[in-house]
Amino acid sequence: MDPAATLAEHLKQIVPPNLALLERANEREYWLAKPRGSLGRLETLAARLSSVQNASRPRHENKLMVVCAGDHGVTEEGVSPYAKEVTYQQILNFDYGAGAIAVLSKNVGAKVVLLDVGVDYDFPPLPSLVSKKIARGTKNLSKGPAMDREGAILSILAGVDVVLAQERVDLVAAGEMGIGNTTPSSCIACAFLGLSPEESTGRGSGLNDELVRQKTRVIARALEINKPDPQDPLDVLAKVGGYEIGAMAGVYLGGAMRRAGVIIDGFIGAAAALIATKLCPNVLSYLIAGHRSKEKAHSAVLERLGLEPLLDLGMWLGEGSGAAIAMYIAECACVHFNEMRTMEEAAIKDIV
Amino acid sequence: MDPAATLAEHLKQIVPPNLALLERANEREYWLAKPRGSLGRLETLAARLSSVQNASRPRHENKLMVVCAGDHGVTEEGVSPYAKEVTYQQILNFDYGAGAIAVLSKNVGAKVVLLDVGVDYDFPPLPSLVSKKIARGTKNLSKGPAMDREGAILSILAGVDVVLAQERVDLVAAGEMGIGNTTPSSCIACAFLGLSPEESTGRGSGLNDELVRQKTRVIARALEINKPDPQDPLDVLAKVGGYEIGAMAGVYLGGAMRRAGVIIDGFIGAAAALIATKLCPNVLSYLIAGHRSKEKAHSAVLERLGLEPLLDLGMWLGEGSGAAIAMYIAECACVHFNEMRTMEEAAIKDIV
Repeated sequence: MDPAATLAEHLKQIVPPNLALLERANEREYWLAKPRGSLGRLETLAARLSSVQNASRPRHENKLMVVCAGDHGVTEEGVSPYAKEVTYQQILNFDYGAGAIAVLSKNVGAKVVLLDVGVDYDFPPLPSLVSKKIARGTKNLSKGPAMDREGAILSILAGVDVVLAQERVDLVAAGEMGIGNTTPSSCIACAFLGLSPEESTGRGSGLNDELVRQKTRVIARALEINKPDPQDPLDVLAKVGGYEIGAMAGVYLGGAMRRAGVIIDGFIGAAAALIATKLCPNVLSYLIAGHRSKEKAHSAVLERLGLEPLLDLGMWLGEGSGAAIAMYIAECACVHFNEMRTMEEAAIKDIV
Repeated sequence: MDPAATLAEHLKQIVPPNLALLERANEREYWLAKPRGSLGRLETLAARLSSVQNASRPRHENKLMVVCAGDHGVTEEGVSPYAKEVTYQQILNFDYGAGAIAVLSKNVGAKVVLLDVGVDYDFPPLPSLVSKKIARGTKNLSKGPAMDREGAILSILAGVDVVLAQERVDLVAAGEMGIGNTTPSSCIACAFLGLSPEESTGRGSGLNDELVRQKTRVIARALEINKPDPQDPLDVLAKVGGYEIGAMAGVYLGGAMRRAGVIIDGFIGAAAALIATKLCPNVLSYLIAGHRSKEKAHSAVLERLGLEPLLDLGMWLGEGSGAAIAMYIAECACVHFNEMRTMEEAAIKDIV
């Protein structure tokens, strides 16, 4: 089957969550031994996970963090303070277990898969690396399309495949490593939300004011030259996206196919969510916003998706770091729901 | 030694955090393999814990949750939708392992101690219960002092003692169970912050508008009759407080004596923090606000203490539930700081 047909087949398998289980979860929650509503978002999250997972008791035991990696031709325009080589250097650091996402994923009990879809480096075999390299980085999107349409589809399929290859997945998140990747993410936000380049361009991994202005010009040029069509998410991804962004969208789709709770990390992850939900509106019900990043347009994208983030810790690292911590909140949602007794079971006098 | 002298001796042992270690932590953080500042509050929290614990690598391994319990004579005024008996019924449920705080503490790896300082019930011996009962509940504070001054001191000492009795404590939080205890907490907030009863009276465990008005009147009467002196925290605690609120203040003091990070839960915990910091300003540096509760005056009290909560999950259960989840954020602060490599160690090209 050709890639476009495979993707279409995948999308057909994504069903809405089980609303009967949502109701049943709310019913159980009502009787747990505490004032009604007093656990706030843990309560709504437990019910959501139950309906998403099609399970009367939501699960958190099998956590998966897929760190999607790719390079970006647009780095030649000076849109990041870091050299392009940092992409592969950090992937090596993650595999070693000493990068932020490696440490935070291990701490929450999530399996880490490093997914190379577009890094400009020949990795040796690494324990946690899955290689599905499509190209050695995108082309410079300020001069023409970042990739062709087939590359966009292949990047999404790579993300889907990694999730489908797992034996069990209860919660899944997509992280990323790709120096320069807030630039395509801002382009995607502009394309779908109609933001101006000024409104969507942030500091990325720490740009000063002058470099933010430079990055804004690059984004404006990319949109002008490429004219991405917001009605066609593959067009947007191909023209102004990145391989790892496509792979993240694929992770979301794969997560929804597997009926897992899907946790979005930061701005890049939210841009990927715009692609995924445009490809398949059903996926939206599976998405949980892990945290509010300090990157400029993140909140605007979450608002467009109708998602309220769980955490706001002033983070803006990316890699999946905010989602890794948010997995713990999802875990607490599950354990309170599954392990608390009801008023009656605990022989506690309810209000009359 | 008489209780007042013992308390005075304890307070003398609380020293400011080690500022040299704060600086050294910031230095290490600067070189970790990520953009500077990108882990937001995990970074500042790691440095704070290092200085508080007087340890170059902050620790989270030994977590302690002390759930302080007491009853309140003021419940006869109809200030809670729950019957007074729910205090002891929930303590039995916590000991069984099926209450929210039991489940959430276990999940984060915290040892739970249930501390009875004033429950109107004769407990059988229970695995996690420590009995330091001072009285079978406070007197009705809307008709006179809730307790005498010695009772106030004894409640604080009970909290201190439980913490000092532990072999190791890296992070400690105080939770509570005491039907009616948002009423004394609102009185304490009024006394120290000069709030009006209207400004400080919230819904507690779920009051309707009419009962909130009734509770507001009770609080106004309590303040008028007792005239607690905000310059004398023991006077405030004795006249309009509660035994478990004193014990929570004691847990904070004990935590600071043991140089542990001290995590505040919700509104009742914040009221106890007003008492503790007034008794000993040094303790403020040890305090971490776990979460923003939905209880009305919580934010005002945190603001007075200069504390920004880590989490905002729409919770208002109390018991220590928000603090239990926040312990995980403190854990993430420690592990990122201790386990990440520096740019140099990971051979990652830094910005120039």
